[in-house]
Amino acid sequence: MTTGVETSVSVYLTERRAEVESALERVVPPATAWPPRLHRAIHHSLFAGGKRLRPILCLAAAEAVGGQWRSLVEASCGLEMIHTYSLIHDDLPALDNDDLRRGVPTCHVAFGEDIAILAGDALLTHGLGVLARWPEGERYAAAKIRVLETVVEAIGTSGMIGGQVADLEAEEEAAPSPELVLSIHENKTGRLLRASLAVGGILSFAASDVLERLDLYGQKIGLAFQIKDDLLDVESDAVTLGKTSGKDAAAGKATFPVVWGVDRSHRVLETTIEEAVDLARGLRGGGGRLPDLARFIGERKS
Amino acid sequence: MTTGVETSVSVYLTERRAEVESALERVVPPATAWPPRLHRAIHHSLFAGGKRLRPILCLAAAEAVGGQWRSLVEASCGLEMIHTYSLIHDDLPALDNDDLRRGVPTCHVAFGEDIAILAGDALLTHGLGVLARWPEGERYAAAKIRVLETVVEAIGTSGMIGGQVADLEAEEEAAPSPELVLSIHENKTGRLLRASLAVGGILSFAASDVLERLDLYGQKIGLAFQIKDDLLDVESDAVTLGKTSGKDAAAGKATFPVVWGVDRSHRVLETTIEEAVDLARGLRGGGGRLPDLARFIGERKS
Repeated sequence: MTTGVETSVSVYLTERRAEVESALERVVPPATAWPPRLHRAIHHSLFAGGKRLRPILCLAAAEAVGGQWRSLVEASCGLEMIHTYSLIHDDLPALDNDDLRRGVPTCHVAFGEDIAILAGDALLTHGLGVLARWPEGERYAAAKIRVLETVVEAIGTSGMIGGQVADLEAEEEAAPSPELVLSIHENKTGRLLRASLAVGGILSFAASDVLERLDLYGQKIGLAFQIKDDLLDVESDAVTLGKTSGKDAAAGKATFPVVWGVDRSHRVLETTIEEAVDLARGLRGGGGRLPDLARFIGERKS
Repeated sequence: MTTGVETSVSVYLTERRAEVESALERVVPPATAWPPRLHRAIHHSLFAGGKRLRPILCLAAAEAVGGQWRSLVEASCGLEMIHTYSLIHDDLPALDNDDLRRGVPTCHVAFGEDIAILAGDALLTHGLGVLARWPEGERYAAAKIRVLETVVEAIGTSGMIGGQVADLEAEEEAAPSPELVLSIHENKTGRLLRASLAVGGILSFAASDVLERLDLYGQKIGLAFQIKDDLLDVESDAVTLGKTSGKDAAAGKATFPVVWGVDRSHRVLETTIEEAVDLARGLRGGGGRLPDLARFIGERKS
């Protein structure tokens, strides 16, 4: 059963995703560029059918605060490139050792570990480079510096990378606490989602109280995203999910269903989504697509 | 036998190196910061007694064009962090598989492959972050954006990372050509050295003809640096070198002594250094410390 809102957000996501895909093709060298093996690996992982959620959140944040989303499409690609770098490195044998991602073999399975490490490095390097370059023009220079500082903080040692280390260490814990699971996911997944909203807001020259509200919204959807991710790992199959399912439990990963149980995880998910919706609606103009996107995050199938 | 020039450049290097070491301690979180295992790994590789050549070249370029080197010390640390990231990842088992670097066990030997990958990621992330953050102040915003674009281009897929891929692929070649060896080293080592000079020039608001001359000087010392590196690998021992010697030949690496022979490599090294010295002397004021630094690169022992 499909409601009107679901159809509408689904059309919106499809349209924006097409814009992001097209911009990614412009900002990333072609798969034939020198050295070809490296660029084929980058394209393999970057164009494997991701949801493009981070760029879309960036563009939706810009729209929600009265910015020009079209001028931010290239910049938003930097967020997807950084996200893809994190997936390639997390999947490596020395880390999560995953073979399947977004329905295709992981980068190191397809291209070897050496190229996968370098392809991840390249996506991180050029992802930040894209955020430095776009939007072009001196009037954006100070805002782009702020964007880079925000994103680096979010993906650095006290953010995404720190969360990844904490996640590795938690595998050795017999019984991780809910607080530990919250902290790992806030850092590992939440911080880049929050930063994606900040990028849209900063590049639209939003006022500081607006940026704060976007950030609170981002915290909620970051949490919701991860609870949903953990629930999908328990409740879905690999074909729908596009990656190995049941993998978290098998690896002894610290997840919400493990520390809270499935029922409570569902309840917290619902509450968190409603809080995000309310925060977005508090923006002037009702938050544009942000309320619908929060709902989408709670209802997605993969 | 030590000449006056050698003493003088040696004092200069020691002084600048102390400034860089001290700034590195300020811009990088302490080894005790969360997560401690990650930060200990970062400190292990970053504070292992490197020459700090890239930051010092950046500061010397600033001085040579009439800039304020003291205000660029923090920014120059970003170059050392990026250099250290590239060493950590190059040393990984899936790449060069090296056990010894700067006289100490490589990062993955000391901390495990997982942490070494993430420590490299962190140094790349925060290295670019340092270049975005310093020098502080809106008047530097446009220059910092230009710095980031320049450095990303230098260390990206058509620069340092591309050179690393080409180097991996060259190991499979029976007889690499001199042109291939030149191209690999220009990308793998030369580009970041050149960019280090550019950073000093750009952040000193140097005119475009001055930046071009710095870049030509950078090309020469980049080449000289790599010829010298290859010669040290052949002619030095591991204790002096601080890393495994004779390793390039054993690995079938494409090096200058292999394609040119040792004697011709020495001759090209000398000519290249003299060209660099002449280029630096053509700067207004005689290029400050840049001529001495070119000579140091040709005469260093490790």
